[in-house]
Amino acid sequence: MNYNRQHLADQVKTAKWKKKLHEIIYEADTPMGKWFDLTLFFVIILSVILVMLESVKEIDTEYHDLLLILEWIITIFFTIEYIARIVTIRKPQRYIFSFYGIIDLLSTIPLYLSYLIAGSQVFLALRAFRLLRIFRILKLVKFIGEASQLKAALKASRTKIAVFIYVVLILSVIMGTVMYLIEDDAAGFTSIPRSIYWTIVTLTTVGYGDIAPQTTVGQFIATVIMILGYGIIAVPTGIVTVEFNKQSGKGKSVVNQAVDLNTQACPSCATEGHKDGAKFCYSCGSDL
Amino acid sequence: MNYNRQHLADQVKTAKWKKKLHEIIYEADTPMGKWFDLTLFFVIILSVILVMLESVKEIDTEYHDLLLILEWIITIFFTIEYIARIVTIRKPQRYIFSFYGIIDLLSTIPLYLSYLIAGSQVFLALRAFRLLRIFRILKLVKFIGEASQLKAALKASRTKIAVFIYVVLILSVIMGTVMYLIEDDAAGFTSIPRSIYWTIVTLTTVGYGDIAPQTTVGQFIATVIMILGYGIIAVPTGIVTVEFNKQSGKGKSVVNQAVDLNTQACPSCATEGHKDGAKFCYSCGSDL
Amino acid sequence: MNYNRQHLADQVKTAKWKKKLHEIIYEADTPMGKWFDLTLFFVIILSVILVMLESVKEIDTEYHDLLLILEWIITIFFTIEYIARIVTIRKPQRYIFSFYGIIDLLSTIPLYLSYLIAGSQVFLALRAFRLLRIFRILKLVKFIGEASQLKAALKASRTKIAVFIYVVLILSVIMGTVMYLIEDDAAGFTSIPRSIYWTIVTLTTVGYGDIAPQTTVGQFIATVIMILGYGIIAVPTGIVTVEFNKQSGKGKSVVNQAVDLNTQACPSCATEGHKDGAKFCYSCGSDL
Amino acid sequence: MNYNRQHLADQVKTAKWKKKLHEIIYEADTPMGKWFDLTLFFVIILSVILVMLESVKEIDTEYHDLLLILEWIITIFFTIEYIARIVTIRKPQRYIFSFYGIIDLLSTIPLYLSYLIAGSQVFLALRAFRLLRIFRILKLVKFIGEASQLKAALKASRTKIAVFIYVVLILSVIMGTVMYLIEDDAAGFTSIPRSIYWTIVTLTTVGYGDIAPQTTVGQFIATVIMILGYGIIAVPTGIVTVEFNKQSGKGKSVVNQAVDLNTQACPSCATEGHKDGAKFCYSCGSDL
Repeated sequence: MNYNRQHLADQVKTAKWKKKLHEIIYEADTPMGKWFDLTLFFVIILSVILVMLESVKEIDTEYHDLLLILEWIITIFFTIEYIARIVTIRKPQRYIFSFYGIIDLLSTIPLYLSYLIAGSQVFLALRAFRLLRIFRILKLVKFIGEASQLKAALKASRTKIAVFIYVVLILSVIMGTVMYLIEDDAAGFTSIPRSIYWTIVTLTTVGYGDIAPQTTVGQFIATVIMILGYGIIAVPTGIVTVEFNKQSGKGKSVVNQAVDLNTQACPSCATEGHKDGAKFCYSCGSDL
Repeated sequence: MNYNRQHLADQVKTAKWKKKLHEIIYEADTPMGKWFDLTLFFVIILSVILVMLESVKEIDTEYHDLLLILEWIITIFFTIEYIARIVTIRKPQRYIFSFYGIIDLLSTIPLYLSYLIAGSQVFLALRAFRLLRIFRILKLVKFIGEASQLKAALKASRTKIAVFIYVVLILSVIMGTVMYLIEDDAAGFTSIPRSIYWTIVTLTTVGYGDIAPQTTVGQFIATVIMILGYGIIAVPTGIVTVEFNKQSGKGKSVVNQAVDLNTQACPSCATEGHKDGAKFCYSCGSDL
Repeated sequence: MNYNRQHLADQVKTAKWKKKLHEIIYEADTPMGKWFDLTLFFVIILSVILVMLESVKEIDTEYHDLLLILEWIITIFFTIEYIARIVTIRKPQRYIFSFYGIIDLLSTIPLYLSYLIAGSQVFLALRAFRLLRIFRILKLVKFIGEASQLKAALKASRTKIAVFIYVVLILSVIMGTVMYLIEDDAAGFTSIPRSIYWTIVTLTTVGYGDIAPQTTVGQFIATVIMILGYGIIAVPTGIVTVEFNKQSGKGKSVVNQAVDLNTQACPSCATEGHKDGAKFCYSCGSDL
Repeated sequence: MNYNRQHLADQVKTAKWKKKLHEIIYEADTPMGKWFDLTLFFVIILSVILVMLESVKEIDTEYHDLLLILEWIITIFFTIEYIARIVTIRKPQRYIFSFYGIIDLLSTIPLYLSYLIAGSQVFLALRAFRLLRIFRILKLVKFIGEASQLKAALKASRTKIAVFIYVVLILSVIMGTVMYLIEDDAAGFTSIPRSIYWTIVTLTTVGYGDIAPQTTVGQFIATVIMILGYGIIAVPTGIVTVEFNKQSGKGKSVVNQAVDLNTQACPSCATEGHKDGAKFCYSCGSDL
């Protein structure tokens, strides 16, 4: 506790450039902040496309050197960004151990590690998770209202959907077990987990066909599962529609409420979603 | 009738410990009752996972002894539970021949039988049905309201959905028969029941691909069935949505009504869903 | 015209037993009528199951004689029914050339023909269409209201659904043609009709997998079609839901209106749906 | 600019027959215009069917000459139509470089080119895009109202659906990447783009089965994706249903508004959707 207070005092004395850098990296209200977000947006998408291309053998063998150079450029950019994020925040451990902090590290470090441990660049693929940050970058006023309406409706129907998924899962375990008893191994029903997998593939109307019932009884039960799956898809749809309808009624106010929020992030703990006039972080209490 | 009255009189004189055990096993209002339910909850899930693991050949060959020991522990636990349920209830035959009573017996007895009749442990898989009891264990106030709203909506749309499924089935029989006449045996349409199976696979948009039309006319009719299936999925969805909407309006009152119920089970016949102040079982009339 | 009037005059003089038989066969208000309908109901279902069993090679070879005997019993029953329907109606040609009349003939005649033309018993399968008559037999008051609500909602959304299917079809033709240009014959896209077939299989989320894109561009377009199909399923659902909602509001009155109808069929032209107090057929004007 | 004004002046002096031809080709208010539209409607459908038949090898080899003759007749009809459209419009470059202008050219020219460049008749398939013009031909009053209601509802839910598709795509990239790390090449997960393709095939419940997970972990994640896909289909459905509901309320007025529009096309730039009493084109300002 004592250490923390000392630490906080240090942070307050941070040089002006640190404050400015914090504004650029963590916020989007200044022109520089917007420019940084847009750059990050494109670099993340580029980095994901790069990982995709590397995974295609034909492309990798032909353009290996070019891809490696681009990979190094992006890795260095991400390294600088990662260090800057740590330096400019008052409580670095909050960022480092946050979800985004771990993702940021994991999408940077594999290339360095690949020189120590062979094959570790495979984990570059985890970079795909950085796409989630795009949600935070795309703080477009237009989308915020719509997205928060969707979120509110899904949140309100959370419990009902949980009950529904719970029922579906128990049904799948029972039906899968029954099918395991009825069907031969030859048809692909080699174990109960595999039978349950098949039941869910059927119930959700995906229907790969890698496993399919061969006996008459098995096909009859499959038919029942299909019609069941066809029918109960109505349940989540019904739930969400009704909630959307409610949200839609109070739509305007939700939008206004969302627009009242600004894009500031707390310089101590990087929490977001502060009200426009807020002077203190609602999460850690330090001044914004 | 005379015998029954005598029997009832006997039951009233049941020793105090029997009454207490009944409360623990059949109800969830006391701390001991809650603890028992929670234990049972985890043992059931463990027993189902165990059966699943046994069905995977690789795991079964490697850990056969460990799995057998765990199987014996669970079977003994279930045996004790089964006997306790019979002993503590006033009318054991009601429990024994109830759906849950039969399931409880079937998930206990196969291991014993496997020493008499080889291969009978296969029926351990029927244990999956015990998962249904979890619904009764999970008497969480939060879920009851939501679940009963869902149930009420589904109940209200029951007749409409029955009409819908009826139409779908007749359509499937007709379409399946037509496809049998058109398609060759080579394409998998070897009999009318198989053709009907294929029609339902197609109409519900599952689409395994184990049977698929080869002729041009067959593919044309398949196309019609698909678009039909794609369109009529709107029907159950529409029905359920409208009912949810209605239920949602009177939602609050349904929740309150559900919360008024307690978790007591009649000591005579194990019927549940008694009102909070109820003194007599609404099903068999004996005092609670 | 003159002949017809003469014919009508003849019909009026019909013997009492003809009138009674008409009541039994075409109506369901008398006990005998109900009994006849129920018998017909079970015979139709039995006849369809019989045709199904005959189509399963293993069953047919083993029980061929038994199935043939049952087939003859049903055929004779249907023949008697067919003749009775013609005899008891005032204008037989109306029944003979009606949809049900043709179906009734087609499900009776193949067995007789099979002695003249080998293989014509295949057309027994057309008997499945007789299942449609079950709708008329099942004139249960409970279902009429629900079914007519469903029908009214579907009828009201008819034009919108037509526009929707029309858009889907044009989209399928365009997408299918594009896929034909992109994909190789090896992947199964051997002709434009086949490509369109594949597009509809994909768009409706059926997905057999007998034809699947192999090239990267093809898979990309397939992805677009899938997301499109996944999204536009919302359109018919939305349309039908809104119409159900409207129908549901005026539901009661629709039910009452439906219940006002009786099960009488016009003795001249077999038209149904007459109001309870109606004295003349609303279709041909002859007295009921 | 100067040239344009000169050009416009020329156009004003256009001979009477040009004006009349414009009315016939671009509008549908006169009997001749309606007749032309209907002819065009059938010729387009015929041309698309012709291209389809040509793509079926068996038909093409047998009826090659007949199909070629029909192809020439249609190509000549389309050539005359294309020239007439250019001649009768005041600003030909607007039509030539419009979407429909390019499609019209592309569905006419391949046959001529096929004598210069072998194989270019493949592009006749692009003629399928002409089907889109049918939307403009089918200016039936009955459908306009319904179609515009559908369009208004889809337009209103545009942003929400964009947010939804965006979330689905990011989820697919992340899930696809995870599956690539888990599954072997043997199962078909040879590269990240292919894994993403599989994820979308699964999430949209299409499920071809050409690629399917083999490992237990892979099948578990597949199960999660399926249930996710099964659940989130409720989201677009909910969105569209709510919007339909709103549109349905103000339905009448939308219809009236749509009916107020006439089928005139601006003689200068071919823009459509002019109000009934309009005297000047709302797009380029020249008189109608």
